[in-house]
Amino acid sequence: MMKIEKKLEELGVKLPEPATPVAAYVPFRRTGNLVYISGQDCKVNGELKYKGKVGKDVTEEEAYEAAKIAAINLLAILKSAVGDLDRVRQIVNLHGYVNSAAGFVRQPFVINGASEFLVEVFGEKGKHSRCALSCNELPFDTPVAIEMIVEVEA
Amino acid sequence: MMKIEKKLEELGVKLPEPATPVAAYVPFRRTGNLVYISGQDCKVNGELKYKGKVGKDVTEEEAYEAAKIAAINLLAILKSAVGDLDRVRQIVNLHGYVNSAAGFVRQPFVINGASEFLVEVFGEKGKHSRCALSCNELPFDTPVAIEMIVEVEA
Amino acid sequence: MMKIEKKLEELGVKLPEPATPVAAYVPFRRTGNLVYISGQDCKVNGELKYKGKVGKDVTEEEAYEAAKIAAINLLAILKSAVGDLDRVRQIVNLHGYVNSAAGFVRQPFVINGASEFLVEVFGEKGKHSRCALSCNELPFDTPVAIEMIVEVEA
Repeated sequence: MMKIEKKLEELGVKLPEPATPVAAYVPFRRTGNLVYISGQDCKVNGELKYKGKVGKDVTEEEAYEAAKIAAINLLAILKSAVGDLDRVRQIVNLHGYVNSAAGFVRQPFVINGASEFLVEVFGEKGKHSRCALSCNELPFDTPVAIEMIVEVEA
Repeated sequence: MMKIEKKLEELGVKLPEPATPVAAYVPFRRTGNLVYISGQDCKVNGELKYKGKVGKDVTEEEAYEAAKIAAINLLAILKSAVGDLDRVRQIVNLHGYVNSAAGFVRQPFVINGASEFLVEVFGEKGKHSRCALSCNELPFDTPVAIEMIVEVEA
Repeated sequence: MMKIEKKLEELGVKLPEPATPVAAYVPFRRTGNLVYISGQDCKVNGELKYKGKVGKDVTEEEAYEAAKIAAINLLAILKSAVGDLDRVRQIVNLHGYVNSAAGFVRQPFVINGASEFLVEVFGEKGKHSRCALSCNELPFDTPVAIEMIVEVEA
């Protein structure tokens, strides 16, 4: 069994079917060894698990979990892009967007839900450069959206 | 006549002069086969065609058109970068930022104004990974700003 | 003495120790010749020099300086990534995020604090593609956050 798939199983994570874009774009594009993955939200079985603004409608703990779900959705697409997650060389970059209520400034702790999960799964290879940001709204009222760039084997 | 230029003509699109940055940066940078294009707004002949927040000052339909205009402005710069748009291999990634009124969560449909146009022009090569986002304000009150990364021939 | 280090000295800029991430990520990732640097704020000696929203708590002039500080913090990390800043081939791309009060739309002039500094230091190589954006909040209430992608010698 593949190493990363085994790790996901140990963590009790089952990758879903990769999401179909809700609009006129594709889930990923590869250029050279880099895979750019489209922004993902906290959908589980086609429905957002959480909705609304962090710091008002959604707690920081819930948003942390929403970020982890977004990372799982990113991995589902990544797997469809490379076939085998063992072909991942490194997670290069991650952008995390938090739908923030006025005064909420703990975006980095929310996005850790994705970052810590990626390190659990990929170890050193999972460590990434990052920017945690705030938005006044996000598509369909998701509390968190995340996109990433991954380097894979040639 | 070049294929993509011909397609643009069929679509009734005339590329403008590439915009001069309003600040201390350049319209694009190329690294290897990738061209990074600076964020563009909905300027036509040097004036923003629309201004204000989508969902309040600007309708979704107008914002869709603003996104298309931004894509046209991106193509004008891309052409100045590569000379001939037939040298485009693929649109790799697009970030679309929507200046959103409180409660507006249909950013993906706005950014489709750019995405659908790129697919009309480039076909399969025009399909891109994407993130549609919201901002509480945008420079000079543009309703939409878009940036993109394009892979071109060596 | 190295050319860029000398230039920094002439400009009276002393690079700080590179910042330790406050969360589960790393300061940079390199893929091929590209170095992706994590978003930096206006910390000096571990404390944000400014706090709050530009156009309300922080003036445009202060925010311009905050952007320059963020650029200095990015260079500190870049130096730790490549050893010698003379190995920089070009600053490829910069994203500047401004924590904006309602109605503040002069983000490009704020981000010029970083852009003009990079051109002062690196000359032609310092000119970059760019997107200046607004956020309704930013981590720990920094007025400005900046991230960048740099091409370096093989």
